[in-house]
Amino acid sequence: MRYAVLGTGMVGHTLADKLIAMGHEVRMGARDGDNPKAVDWAEGKGPGAGHGSYADVSEWAERIVFAVNGAKLLDVAVAATKEATADKTIIDVTNPLDTSNGMPPTLVPEMSNTTSAGEQLQLKLPDARVVKTLNTMNHLLMVDPGRLSGSHDVFLCGDDEAAKADVIGMLSEFGWDDPIDLGPLAAARGMEGLMPFWLRMWGVVGSADFNYKIVRN
Amino acid sequence: MRYAVLGTGMVGHTLADKLIAMGHEVRMGARDGDNPKAVDWAEGKGPGAGHGSYADVSEWAERIVFAVNGAKLLDVAVAATKEATADKTIIDVTNPLDTSNGMPPTLVPEMSNTTSAGEQLQLKLPDARVVKTLNTMNHLLMVDPGRLSGSHDVFLCGDDEAAKADVIGMLSEFGWDDPIDLGPLAAARGMEGLMPFWLRMWGVVGSADFNYKIVRN
Repeated sequence: MRYAVLGTGMVGHTLADKLIAMGHEVRMGARDGDNPKAVDWAEGKGPGAGHGSYADVSEWAERIVFAVNGAKLLDVAVAATKEATADKTIIDVTNPLDTSNGMPPTLVPEMSNTTSAGEQLQLKLPDARVVKTLNTMNHLLMVDPGRLSGSHDVFLCGDDEAAKADVIGMLSEFGWDDPIDLGPLAAARGMEGLMPFWLRMWGVVGSADFNYKIVRN
Repeated sequence: MRYAVLGTGMVGHTLADKLIAMGHEVRMGARDGDNPKAVDWAEGKGPGAGHGSYADVSEWAERIVFAVNGAKLLDVAVAATKEATADKTIIDVTNPLDTSNGMPPTLVPEMSNTTSAGEQLQLKLPDARVVKTLNTMNHLLMVDPGRLSGSHDVFLCGDDEAAKADVIGMLSEFGWDDPIDLGPLAAARGMEGLMPFWLRMWGVVGSADFNYKIVRN
């Protein structure tokens, strides 16, 4: 499968590395197609890896991962373009964090509560098929659920069932056996709304190596 | 211990019943001191039970539980009065849900994200000692964690350590052995922010009998 990973930060690197390790072709996208972090990454990963602008890697890809700063998600969506993302499954792992109020961050008001980053992304790219997932945990855990002993949960939501099936397949490759489908993309409000809680729990645990498990009978 | 339980809904009834069962004296508070639901409850519960206005039961009590509609929390705080709540531990189990946008509810904007119902309650009652807890689950589970098999978590936060110790004691009577202290009352933003997620999960589970467990190594 050809994956574009938009974002050159830790989350983008971790996801891109894992997808390469799973045998996929991956291009890391950035605003500048010659972004040094993306170039360095691609050069270190062999022939299956590449880099390019948001639009170029999206055009090339079959699936597109948004692993960028959530507060800047919509700018990246515009740069990726409607045309290059049309009919493609988008995997949105972002959180719309607002650091302008100090730490811990709050949520960007225009992207939370009565809407979400996931929904706003879908509105910007109406022909793409957005699925929200993996945003409720640390990046290392995203691709290695076995880091934690015992079972724990990953969630997803989206309006397109075929795209969700694609994402469930990707999650299975990452080691997630039984993801919880929360339904329509509007459930991203709930998934992104976990982040302020997560940030507090991070302080309590003293490490990002924790996750939620939904306990039921 | 003398507990006032403000609120005559399901949550108030469940908590008041449990506190009576644990041997405490309990008065159920309402806007109208002769609220029929509060009168009925008190008459059915024997000599340890009573009822009265928000201010009267708060004045009488040593600890005060806010189990009212979160969107109306501040009106209830004003009615309970600064004077009657001064120096007392307040147990705030509310969620500031806004049903004006349809279902599922969103959060009241003025009581979420950069603030919380818990913090707003503390501002209204500056001499009280507000602790947020139990708002992250269904009311039946609040007083009976054994309804679910396996371990799962309850959280609390507040700015007053002595008040948190009071609440940890109450939670222990309810069957919660190891509550997770998230720190200052501002962590209520995170705890209340779980509710939109909870409402989605409720739909998936098809029952309110579920809870979060924080999995860590």
